[in-house]
Amino acid sequence: MKAAILAIGTELLIGQTIDTNSAWIGEHVTALGLTITQTLAIADDKPVMIDAIKSLSKDVDYLFITGGLGPTKDDITKDALAEVLGVEMKFDQSTNDRIVSYFVERNLQISELHKAQCYFPIGIQLLENTMGTAPGMLMQHQNCQIISMPGVPYEMKEIMKGKVLPLIESNHKRQPYYQKTIHTAGIPESSVADLIEATLDNLPESIDIAYLPSLGTVKVRVSAIGQESELQVKNVVDLLVDKLQPYVYGYDGLEIQEAVQQLMIDRGLTLATAESCTGGYISHLITSISGSSGHYNGGIVAYANEVKINQLNVNPNTITQYGAVSEEVVKEMVIGCIDSLRSDIAIAVSGIAGPTGGTELKPVGTIWICVGNKERQFTRKFGLTKNRIINIRYSSRAALILLRKFLLDQ
Amino acid sequence: MKAAILAIGTELLIGQTIDTNSAWIGEHVTALGLTITQTLAIADDKPVMIDAIKSLSKDVDYLFITGGLGPTKDDITKDALAEVLGVEMKFDQSTNDRIVSYFVERNLQISELHKAQCYFPIGIQLLENTMGTAPGMLMQHQNCQIISMPGVPYEMKEIMKGKVLPLIESNHKRQPYYQKTIHTAGIPESSVADLIEATLDNLPESIDIAYLPSLGTVKVRVSAIGQESELQVKNVVDLLVDKLQPYVYGYDGLEIQEAVQQLMIDRGLTLATAESCTGGYISHLITSISGSSGHYNGGIVAYANEVKINQLNVNPNTITQYGAVSEEVVKEMVIGCIDSLRSDIAIAVSGIAGPTGGTELKPVGTIWICVGNKERQFTRKFGLTKNRIINIRYSSRAALILLRKFLLDQ
Repeated sequence: MKAAILAIGTELLIGQTIDTNSAWIGEHVTALGLTITQTLAIADDKPVMIDAIKSLSKDVDYLFITGGLGPTKDDITKDALAEVLGVEMKFDQSTNDRIVSYFVERNLQISELHKAQCYFPIGIQLLENTMGTAPGMLMQHQNCQIISMPGVPYEMKEIMKGKVLPLIESNHKRQPYYQKTIHTAGIPESSVADLIEATLDNLPESIDIAYLPSLGTVKVRVSAIGQESELQVKNVVDLLVDKLQPYVYGYDGLEIQEAVQQLMIDRGLTLATAESCTGGYISHLITSISGSSGHYNGGIVAYANEVKINQLNVNPNTITQYGAVSEEVVKEMVIGCIDSLRSDIAIAVSGIAGPTGGTELKPVGTIWICVGNKERQFTRKFGLTKNRIINIRYSSRAALILLRKFLLDQ
Repeated sequence: MKAAILAIGTELLIGQTIDTNSAWIGEHVTALGLTITQTLAIADDKPVMIDAIKSLSKDVDYLFITGGLGPTKDDITKDALAEVLGVEMKFDQSTNDRIVSYFVERNLQISELHKAQCYFPIGIQLLENTMGTAPGMLMQHQNCQIISMPGVPYEMKEIMKGKVLPLIESNHKRQPYYQKTIHTAGIPESSVADLIEATLDNLPESIDIAYLPSLGTVKVRVSAIGQESELQVKNVVDLLVDKLQPYVYGYDGLEIQEAVQQLMIDRGLTLATAESCTGGYISHLITSISGSSGHYNGGIVAYANEVKINQLNVNPNTITQYGAVSEEVVKEMVIGCIDSLRSDIAIAVSGIAGPTGGTELKPVGTIWICVGNKERQFTRKFGLTKNRIINIRYSSRAALILLRKFLLDQ
């Protein structure tokens, strides 16, 4: 079964909004055995929308459309769909009643503009939206099921989870598709390829391999279609993991922070963080995982030097002598953090995130990381980029990768 | 001048990677007067790639391609381009030399696979990649300039900034396009539309208006093409801002954390944060802005109750009596945070991010926020979603919006 995704909104083309919806839809319908052939983003322009809907729906079994269902004038997806289907629009009283009660419950003033949200192409099926005012729509056009949803991500997701994914599952038997992704850290993409090259040369044709490099990590996706796909993929993954140890930290959706959380909880250890240049991002990564309170006590964002001194007990002389961005300071931050937050292990980071603040000896991108307990600390120095956000994200993940190494070396 | 973006990689279609490249390219070339007609994502499949390159390049002046230039077997963009151009591939010694020295400098082992990265379609122009091993490529196909770049975001950005954007600027006179976006917070999209509807009815045809709702904010983009576009847009923005005060917190790329930073620095005040359920995300938002050290002292991520008690001086009896998620506790967190981190103002958040941990009285999504100084505190309670990440992001932005209100009410 083939599918395509159409994202509507000029904001996507001019880069004002990053399209996260298409990836989410792609992930969830691929898991049900659909093959996404393309995702297309176009402007809020009726003739362009009509062309795109017509041409995409010819080639696929499902077309997922997001965007253009809001209450305002630039929301014209329903008009375009009515034209493709060759039908008129009709007022739906139940949608009107639902919108009125939605506003009353939230103590918000209702606007006349919401009347426009109650008109739909005749003959379509409404898909309830529990998170907002615009329902989704399901319709058949020639051999294609078209699903139109709001562009607001959490509204789209609720409609997909509540209505669309169950519908796809019930519509057809699941295709025998299977995939598994191996996550590695601390090794460049080409070295990963070198390690597994010989193995890959002897694989069956049905196996597909892809490399996904990201900041500090390389993921290797193994997938196959066919009756034997699950068994085949699992066998290949075993072969590859055999070559890639000790760089493998996990599989599939698992992020480095989840791998670390599992290790910490298994060992019954508690963690705390002391962040300067990463400014809370490590803490955010850790706490974005449900259950993190099982091992994570908390953190101190020691942005000002006084916070390093008062909260983390860093010796002011160490800062004067070596500078705030130094191996000596991150070591003292780890020890101080363990004491202050009464944890077994701490992570500390201090660096120059940029784009300003660099010196000749310590240019922008110089970052020191320390991970350890009271007895033993690992430190690492990085020379990263001039880009503040990249430096924050890269060094935050590097700190978690170092923590994983520390735990495994214990 | 028209342009299209082609993102290559099965990982984009199956949702393993979110395509942030297309938004970035869209933003930067729109600013130079190009009009993006579509962005398309397709799989690592040579026939599909060839079709897409041929059909997109027919309709536009520029085609930007990202992905498929790595050292591994699934990287086949160059082969597809050679076939579209009808040329052979040729080894490039200077690229080989550069890759070898790139690896030597970083003390990494060089792999034979990098030889594949040194072959290019004959006749193309190489675009230097200072951040990685695969150079970009520029080529002419019929009336279209095709630019092919690696999919790794920071490599693509460096090639765009260093080579491609200057080329586009020099190739043609900038189109008279102008846009300005008004950012509002604390008001739903339909109420924004109600406030400005009468004004919009009387605008010239050349003005385009779009609404961009997001978590807690609504952006209104005003744009126009033509000789008078800048003046027209600025006039319209003035009219709209007149209706939308006091919800407007800024314009264009400005995020709420930047607006707050400006207010704090203007008033000479210092800020600290005390985060429980947001787990460092507020701190991350604040410190993602360059110059945040000018007002931000730091923060305490008080995940465990002991951290609230020891670091923020919250009374254990308050926690026992009212619970950690309560108005009383966030108020004590603000006061304690001001004292501990010696700041003028503090933000505190405590809530149940979910998906577990809710009770009947305090379901998942219950979040208390407090903002204030020693004399005066604003508090707000939110009933949000069951989704952990949405709850973290929404309440973090809500806290900054409340801080802005607090500062303006002083």
